[in-house]
Amino acid sequence: MVGAAAGAKTVIRRLTQAAPDLLVDARRLADALAYLQRFSASPTGTTRLAYSDQDLAARVWLVDRLVELGLNVSVDLGGNLIGRRVGTDASLPPLLLGSHIDSVPEGGSFDGQVGSMGALEVFATLVDADHTTRHPLEFVVWANEEGGKTGSRAIAGEVRPAELDLMTASGYTIGEGTHRLGGDLSDLGAAIRSPASIAAYLELHIEQGFVLDRRGLDIGVVEGIVGIKRWTLTVNGFANHAGTTPMDQRQDAMVAAAQMITSVQRVALELPGRHVATVGRLQAEPGAPNVIPGRVTFSLEIRDLEMRKIDQVFQAIEREARQIADETATTVDVEQFYESRAAPTAPRLRDLIEREAVRLDLKPLRMPSGAGHDAQSVALLAPVGMIFVPSLDGISHSPLESTTPAQVEAGSNVLLRTLLALDDERA
Amino acid sequence: MVGAAAGAKTVIRRLTQAAPDLLVDARRLADALAYLQRFSASPTGTTRLAYSDQDLAARVWLVDRLVELGLNVSVDLGGNLIGRRVGTDASLPPLLLGSHIDSVPEGGSFDGQVGSMGALEVFATLVDADHTTRHPLEFVVWANEEGGKTGSRAIAGEVRPAELDLMTASGYTIGEGTHRLGGDLSDLGAAIRSPASIAAYLELHIEQGFVLDRRGLDIGVVEGIVGIKRWTLTVNGFANHAGTTPMDQRQDAMVAAAQMITSVQRVALELPGRHVATVGRLQAEPGAPNVIPGRVTFSLEIRDLEMRKIDQVFQAIEREARQIADETATTVDVEQFYESRAAPTAPRLRDLIEREAVRLDLKPLRMPSGAGHDAQSVALLAPVGMIFVPSLDGISHSPLESTTPAQVEAGSNVLLRTLLALDDERA
Repeated sequence: MVGAAAGAKTVIRRLTQAAPDLLVDARRLADALAYLQRFSASPTGTTRLAYSDQDLAARVWLVDRLVELGLNVSVDLGGNLIGRRVGTDASLPPLLLGSHIDSVPEGGSFDGQVGSMGALEVFATLVDADHTTRHPLEFVVWANEEGGKTGSRAIAGEVRPAELDLMTASGYTIGEGTHRLGGDLSDLGAAIRSPASIAAYLELHIEQGFVLDRRGLDIGVVEGIVGIKRWTLTVNGFANHAGTTPMDQRQDAMVAAAQMITSVQRVALELPGRHVATVGRLQAEPGAPNVIPGRVTFSLEIRDLEMRKIDQVFQAIEREARQIADETATTVDVEQFYESRAAPTAPRLRDLIEREAVRLDLKPLRMPSGAGHDAQSVALLAPVGMIFVPSLDGISHSPLESTTPAQVEAGSNVLLRTLLALDDERA
Repeated sequence: MVGAAAGAKTVIRRLTQAAPDLLVDARRLADALAYLQRFSASPTGTTRLAYSDQDLAARVWLVDRLVELGLNVSVDLGGNLIGRRVGTDASLPPLLLGSHIDSVPEGGSFDGQVGSMGALEVFATLVDADHTTRHPLEFVVWANEEGGKTGSRAIAGEVRPAELDLMTASGYTIGEGTHRLGGDLSDLGAAIRSPASIAAYLELHIEQGFVLDRRGLDIGVVEGIVGIKRWTLTVNGFANHAGTTPMDQRQDAMVAAAQMITSVQRVALELPGRHVATVGRLQAEPGAPNVIPGRVTFSLEIRDLEMRKIDQVFQAIEREARQIADETATTVDVEQFYESRAAPTAPRLRDLIEREAVRLDLKPLRMPSGAGHDAQSVALLAPVGMIFVPSLDGISHSPLESTTPAQVEAGSNVLLRTLLALDDERA
């Protein structure tokens, strides 16, 4: 009854207001980011491991802020912190804004935190302006993004029971940690959120790459979170004495692997597109300077917005790897060990983000997100839009992570304007 | 006085004998090798770690055999087991024959053991034939060959004081282990043997490579033990998120290292000669499938009979590595961490070995020894000659190590005939 009464009141106010041309308060936004940085286990950058005491303390502080803004605060079963604001049309599902505040060990003070404080500032701006949207709004801080996007995956029904027993860097299992945040994943089905309960989700985030920074652009209009596939390639040669085996009679798994890695790079560069292919890990056995490696194992990761493209790049790489194996008297075994589906953003939201960025005199670029984000879980339930702001030198997951106050402000304004535009749409 | 008397007696015998046309007893030789295999900590192959109980037990058995052959048995300060036989000319320094009987963990039953039992059989053959050489003879079983050639390096003055405290696989330090064998390295200077006390040293050994086996040859006439240099190459790129960093803007230390390893192989194959170059160890940092490696460290080992050639091959490799670093926006640091000087065998002994092999209707091949041997320590004091017999498939340091009884017999006959030829020389 309280909600209905408040709704009625704002309908009246809305009818008397011009279409809002709001902007965030840059000073308040910068202050919130600086304050959030206090909740850290490390003196430089931010160490706020999911489920840690620092994570809890920051959430307690946020609850106070949300209550001050008049939001209805709750924690869902996945441990996600939610602040609700009533809209003028109670028949509409809510628009969600948010990100995460947990960090990697010795991480930066911008990853997740810019989007969380940006969303908070959007709410503060709306409250200041006494502007009520048509849709109900939800401010969301997801649980354990860095350790596996637990909170956002929980509402999409993607968390497997075995995950709850995984130990996290905080010293708590995911199950225990969720409890600490006020959630409860003992019934995973109960944590799932209905698609009908979300109109759309918008997330502001730092790019974590250097594309915007190097090109001097302001806003990334994210086309989607790339899909990922990972394989282990095992090259089998013949381990032999490095002194007694002539060069032309070796079955050197290291030499074969080196040619394959060179080929991964060449194939990925030659094929058109924005896919990336990476060999990040390699192990040679037996691994002594005086023994020709008999076995070399290395990882291959390919990312693209389209799973089909990932498969094409992989097939070209695999073909060359098998040819190299033939030429080097080795064999190669290929085994996939990981897959994460690509999550495209909603084209309608991309258009709105780009339009609002241009209206704010900002320079946008359409781009994929190479990194994973909570938005990719929410995309399983509802249309999502993502806004990137530049990362200085592309550095992320490091105390050196940096985005200027003006860039954070610009991204938050695009978030605010996109939200208002979306709220106004009558499609 | 006893020695002089025995000498006088054999001079008379020698004058009444034809130049000996002796051959070893293949059955007795095979029996000795089989018996030696009993002293092993593993059921297959041989595990007879230097200084272990098995090493001691085998030496005790050998002492009995040497005494049966009428040799004067002693252990020198380096822990080397020595059996002396008087010659007809007491003014000559002794000719040494021997090898080692210690093995690597889970090693084979031929490495070192063929040469030790071959030398023992040479002595038994001489005793059977009642043939006394002009030179005194010494049968030697060196101490701790596999763990650093301690015994042979001790007589050459190459053991550093700090080595004595090194823990060996047997559970004893080198100092303790030497004591167990009856030696004492507390005064390293006292263990050094005078060059004047050795006329020459002959060692029979398995090839530990597949050159003789693949080419169907019987005898390797070793031209020397190759020199070895080892370097660590550190490629510095920039660690970055594998998802957010476009392919054409990476500083991928793994890609650079892969090109360098490919170049090592190509340079080594293209330059004329029998040098070998090997990359046996590689470490990528941070080493995660989803992070572009910022640093890759790998070993480079080059071996050749001439140190100058090693340097030439290295310079060509280093030049290409620096060029690759430039092209891949990485840097490369190169640091040498090991050097073992090449030890050529005496040309006169090569000629004798080859001549005697041919006379025995065996097919010899002049070749370098890619592996290290006790002969390389003795080469610092006296002329050395080395005889190789084939290793099946080149396998060594494994229970699968194998050389046929006929091949062991052939090698032992070459050892015997070379010894007799050398003894007869009046150069």
